[in-house]
Amino acid sequence: MKTEVPYKIYLDESEIPTQWYNVRADMKNKPAPLLNPATLQPLTMDDLRPIFCEELNKQELDNDTPYFDIPEEIQKFYRMYRPSPLVRAYFLEKALGTPAKIFYKFEGNNTSGSHKLNSAIAQAYYAKQQGLKGVTTETGAGQWGTALSMACAYFGLDCQVYMVKCSYEQKPFRREVMRTYGARITPSPSMTTQVGRKILSEHPDTTGSLGCAISEAVESALSQEGYRYVLGSVLNQVLLHQTIIGLETKRALDKYGIKPDIIIGCAGGGSNLGGLISPFVGEMLRGENEYKIIAVEPASCPSFTRGKFAYDFCDTGMICPLAKMYTLGSQFIPSANHAGGLRFHGMSTILSQLYHDGLFEARSVEQTSIFEAATQFARVEGILPAPESSHAIRVAIDEALKCKETGEEKTIVFGLTGTGYFDLYAYEAFNNHTMSDIIPSDDTIAQALAKLPKVD
Amino acid sequence: MKTEVPYKIYLDESEIPTQWYNVRADMKNKPAPLLNPATLQPLTMDDLRPIFCEELNKQELDNDTPYFDIPEEIQKFYRMYRPSPLVRAYFLEKALGTPAKIFYKFEGNNTSGSHKLNSAIAQAYYAKQQGLKGVTTETGAGQWGTALSMACAYFGLDCQVYMVKCSYEQKPFRREVMRTYGARITPSPSMTTQVGRKILSEHPDTTGSLGCAISEAVESALSQEGYRYVLGSVLNQVLLHQTIIGLETKRALDKYGIKPDIIIGCAGGGSNLGGLISPFVGEMLRGENEYKIIAVEPASCPSFTRGKFAYDFCDTGMICPLAKMYTLGSQFIPSANHAGGLRFHGMSTILSQLYHDGLFEARSVEQTSIFEAATQFARVEGILPAPESSHAIRVAIDEALKCKETGEEKTIVFGLTGTGYFDLYAYEAFNNHTMSDIIPSDDTIAQALAKLPKVD
Repeated sequence: MKTEVPYKIYLDESEIPTQWYNVRADMKNKPAPLLNPATLQPLTMDDLRPIFCEELNKQELDNDTPYFDIPEEIQKFYRMYRPSPLVRAYFLEKALGTPAKIFYKFEGNNTSGSHKLNSAIAQAYYAKQQGLKGVTTETGAGQWGTALSMACAYFGLDCQVYMVKCSYEQKPFRREVMRTYGARITPSPSMTTQVGRKILSEHPDTTGSLGCAISEAVESALSQEGYRYVLGSVLNQVLLHQTIIGLETKRALDKYGIKPDIIIGCAGGGSNLGGLISPFVGEMLRGENEYKIIAVEPASCPSFTRGKFAYDFCDTGMICPLAKMYTLGSQFIPSANHAGGLRFHGMSTILSQLYHDGLFEARSVEQTSIFEAATQFARVEGILPAPESSHAIRVAIDEALKCKETGEEKTIVFGLTGTGYFDLYAYEAFNNHTMSDIIPSDDTIAQALAKLPKVD
Repeated sequence: MKTEVPYKIYLDESEIPTQWYNVRADMKNKPAPLLNPATLQPLTMDDLRPIFCEELNKQELDNDTPYFDIPEEIQKFYRMYRPSPLVRAYFLEKALGTPAKIFYKFEGNNTSGSHKLNSAIAQAYYAKQQGLKGVTTETGAGQWGTALSMACAYFGLDCQVYMVKCSYEQKPFRREVMRTYGARITPSPSMTTQVGRKILSEHPDTTGSLGCAISEAVESALSQEGYRYVLGSVLNQVLLHQTIIGLETKRALDKYGIKPDIIIGCAGGGSNLGGLISPFVGEMLRGENEYKIIAVEPASCPSFTRGKFAYDFCDTGMICPLAKMYTLGSQFIPSANHAGGLRFHGMSTILSQLYHDGLFEARSVEQTSIFEAATQFARVEGILPAPESSHAIRVAIDEALKCKETGEEKTIVFGLTGTGYFDLYAYEAFNNHTMSDIIPSDDTIAQALAKLPKVD
């Protein structure tokens, strides 16, 4: 076992995990099944087949198989940008004057700028294997769309992205990265789908929404021969693919005999958090180890901390399946937070069940406090973090400062999901002191929760 | 010695070089000295002292010491983002169907997005050691300004950046990264300097130029107690710091017993090219080895391939020292090329002398052809390259395709200096087919060269 911990722990390429870990296999209380919105019955393979890829559906519904082999072609692609470094934040520790040891798993060193590529390449692979011509998806902030464009370019698949119109106009850079990778980008709502035409006829000036873009992407996949729809978060399959993050993290720590005390991740739909914590939660479920795990969400969209554990629609349009999850209600509209990737009313069903069963805790934080942490981190660690990732930085710093008070040498590991190169309007607002914190009132949340579907 | 070459060769942190290499020590024909523009006599320490930092001036004028120790504090900072990976371009090789083995040294995995940080941290360190309050500089495309902002944030130095006004307005993202690192950014020309006020009174609508920004930054340093001016390319000291690139590259290749046949780098002022090739050129100068080295420059600004080896001013304002270099004339105005970092009329004196002595060859390439190569590279290797870096990609691909014709298994190494996240207007122009190639006519170049100062 090695002793001196370098600034960056890189696994050898031969040490990259060759299997994904399915935490559901170790859960006594399995996540509740998705329900068909028409019948309110659990979704079956037959329900899923027209929309998603065959192999991905198997992964989605499999609550029992603990490990899935990562196909060789995906392992090869992973070598393009993996293993990602586990960084010892020596500079940050020194700046804070803390006895805590801080590590972060950095997933931003690829052109998509985030961990999203881990699942994008898997989903594109299975689409290609199935002989499909292409896939459709939606993107808001653009990280998922970029990741999928890269994955599709690699396999020569057509990639059709419905991009929320205001993002399409305000984030031309994201759009051009996707176009450079050969993707077709359509501002949503558009005239290319029935649902888009309907919305435009009713609201000709709308700048779009993620819910609407999802509806268009699904309709587009269903109406084209040889196409399926893919999604970048929330789903069980996505969490499965993202466990590469946690597995690499654990392997890197094990090389140096380090056991983390606290593990921290930001939570939007749950893909990064689930991927990071799954192997550690698995140990807890099997009674092998104990960890303190903290999910961090924006105060403007606090699903875990102020939501309800109930069946709800996954989209505002109420056409997608229902999931039992911590939700603020599908009609809840979060205020304009700069962490676009965390603006989702619900949460992964796996994480919701784990949280309900007390496997981890959750905290909500306000965005000015997030950007303070982001700026401090950037100046000492040299990486400009994404606003989403900075939620984890905020709580990692808070925990390290607690250690400073108590003198405890705790080991803190957090997920640094991505870079903020395409979020500089947000940094500009912070730099100019024009950023504000808008937190939903109890009434607002109660009203949204009152509209939950009656299922249970 | 290891045999199987991974996708990415990472040196251990303990293998990062601890000395920079000064190629001038091995040059029989030393680079000609810079001349004081007032006296036309070689610049002395006394001339340099008011403008640049003391230790950096020593490095600038030292043609004899072969190695300089890298101070410990700089070595520590290097661990924030170094060693940078030497990537085996397996995906690109396969896409090209070439028997050539292609490697690239990737310097873009840091927030400044380029190799510029290697010298920025060194210059900031020596400024801090000298007890200065701050430094001033200019930036055009913004990579140098970003790198210097990061370095100054680390040492708590004030950083004042004169940013060419059109970049300041068109590249708000670059500006905000620098502000996030605490730098003060002034659009140039400005009312804060005499030269700025003079230019503005004569040309109130000017959007600025690099030459003007240099003049303002120098004046600003001279007029403030405890400030010095720093520069990101061209100078001998900068090439010295950048040799960390070539030294790491050589060490990584040596670990696998690989000797490159062809080494390729893009050339603007010469900092990246000089840094990459110095250790290899040193072997050639000492008669130990032979390499084919290719400098790649834009067809719109072809200093090596169409310029003259002569004394010339380093700036359009003709107030800076004169350097003997390959130049198109200080009054040459390159057309609006998207590779802002390569739009310099002259070239490093070290590289100019080496080129004059036949140590390497040079090629010029047109920008649409550059973006074709960039897009192909991005799609298979997963990295969105900077336009500057893509000059090297273009020629690496061309050489690999020659190998495909001849069947030769040559080993090609090129420098991938940075990422293109802030160059997406250029990619947009390429994606929209609105990018054009403007090559200066023989007359244009002859007219600019006719205005060279009479020195020799």
